[in-house]
Amino acid sequence: MPKALVLTKFANEYERLIEAAGLPELELVATSEVPDGLFRAGDSDILVGDPVRVVAALPRLSRLRWVQLTWAGVERMLDPALRRDYVLTNVRGVFGPLVSEYVFGYLLLHERKIVARLEAQREGRWDATLPGTLQGKTMGLVGVGSIGSHLAATAKHFGMSVRGYTRTSADCPHVDRYFHGGDKAAFASGLDYLAAALPNTAGTRRLVDAAMLSALPAHAVVVNAGRGDTLDTAALIDALESRRLAAAVLDVFDEEPLPEGHPLWRTPGVFITSHTAAPSFPSDIVGVFVDNYRRYVRGEALRYQVDFDRGY
Amino acid sequence: MPKALVLTKFANEYERLIEAAGLPELELVATSEVPDGLFRAGDSDILVGDPVRVVAALPRLSRLRWVQLTWAGVERMLDPALRRDYVLTNVRGVFGPLVSEYVFGYLLLHERKIVARLEAQREGRWDATLPGTLQGKTMGLVGVGSIGSHLAATAKHFGMSVRGYTRTSADCPHVDRYFHGGDKAAFASGLDYLAAALPNTAGTRRLVDAAMLSALPAHAVVVNAGRGDTLDTAALIDALESRRLAAAVLDVFDEEPLPEGHPLWRTPGVFITSHTAAPSFPSDIVGVFVDNYRRYVRGEALRYQVDFDRGY
Repeated sequence: MPKALVLTKFANEYERLIEAAGLPELELVATSEVPDGLFRAGDSDILVGDPVRVVAALPRLSRLRWVQLTWAGVERMLDPALRRDYVLTNVRGVFGPLVSEYVFGYLLLHERKIVARLEAQREGRWDATLPGTLQGKTMGLVGVGSIGSHLAATAKHFGMSVRGYTRTSADCPHVDRYFHGGDKAAFASGLDYLAAALPNTAGTRRLVDAAMLSALPAHAVVVNAGRGDTLDTAALIDALESRRLAAAVLDVFDEEPLPEGHPLWRTPGVFITSHTAAPSFPSDIVGVFVDNYRRYVRGEALRYQVDFDRGY
Repeated sequence: MPKALVLTKFANEYERLIEAAGLPELELVATSEVPDGLFRAGDSDILVGDPVRVVAALPRLSRLRWVQLTWAGVERMLDPALRRDYVLTNVRGVFGPLVSEYVFGYLLLHERKIVARLEAQREGRWDATLPGTLQGKTMGLVGVGSIGSHLAATAKHFGMSVRGYTRTSADCPHVDRYFHGGDKAAFASGLDYLAAALPNTAGTRRLVDAAMLSALPAHAVVVNAGRGDTLDTAALIDALESRRLAAAVLDVFDEEPLPEGHPLWRTPGVFITSHTAAPSFPSDIVGVFVDNYRRYVRGEALRYQVDFDRGY
């Protein structure tokens, strides 16, 4: 009989949601405490949790066959010192809608001049400055996986053109034009918005670099909702400070939390969102786990398997 | 040969855009000055312009057959003292995308807690407070015409449920459930967001009243992007001040500009957007005019005709 140990800050909510799903045969222990979890369910074949708790429990689970992360990010799991004798699945698919809400919340903040209007209201001033519109603007997506595809669909809903910069893929119906490899300047040239939602892998490190940033028009806005490492922070600060870029909405950083006194806190045009773009809502994550559990007991391939060597 | 007088603040841009359309046979005079326009093209059969300028020119155009407004609002044209011996068309269709950007800009501002995050950034504080999400929330639309239909489609894109409150219509595929007449409390009960984008007519006056507002949950947010008269301002202020409503995003008011010292400037939870929700961008309006002009010269019925008696 399958036995799952659920290690997460939100143990009670996960337990309630998983039990409500009425999964066949599942024995379940949910706790936020690693030692307690190991004591109560050290013989689990299934481990569900966030990477920090999972890494702590990993060496002690002798019967482990499957780890379902409650996050998208898998960096911590790739440490060569850790075992790899189990199937690792992360969470995908659920973050597209959340990242769309994040990205378009800030795009509309920009177009509608909301910050200036809030300021006008504080002064009791009727501010009839015309807003902009997303219609007819061009969005460039760095990476077009499940998140990028959702962003592309949202951009199309708002009447935008969409470009995609990918390693090789070119199959999203909402992307008008694809760019690859050395096409960074052609990709970035003329964009109104550039959005990156990339995982942290060897291939994505500093992918959004000075070459890409310097090809953007001065009115462009950059959004990074993926991982901090995928963007060249120094080049970004330089572009913003010299007004070669209008704004940057940053959810992720080389070091998190962003250290006190870091220049980004005060760089003109920067919006700091403190790694909140795509939180793992338990109801979303449990949906992924439940679907994978049904596959697991039927002996089918699990969804969203991570390749340890590729890093995603 | 048809002769059009274009009276608008943006005369140069209208002239450029209309000439670029290469309309057959059209003789065109565009100016922002009413007396100048009448002097140069007082024999026009077509008048294009904003309501203030159109009303001023109306009595002097002896050959007038058609007025194309550059706005959606027709209130000024309905004054019984004005002539009605011409076809009046306004602008519709083009405002749906703009009002969607407006409404969802503020819905996402609310869900993503952007105001609090801006404040945290000013304090150099990492604010990892979880955002909310539009997914699974319920939007109530008061009026489901071309604007309401676009709002409904956008709500569906973001994974929301949609209710419509209309006089009789019930044909938008993106509305899950319709309410009419005395169903105000049933319509409003359980809504997360209520959005009104109604024209100002006898039938819409104070349609969003105390009965509708008091049935909303305390966490609900109201958006008014139509006309000020369609909402009971006193009842709204009362609900916000007694915390029976979370917020109100108001583009339109009983008196505009909103007078200095009006309580709405300081009512908790109010966002004032100074009648900027759906500006008439010349390129959009010229598109409507060009299409109607082609119909006009072919002797076909014009689109977006206003019924003087119904008021829309």
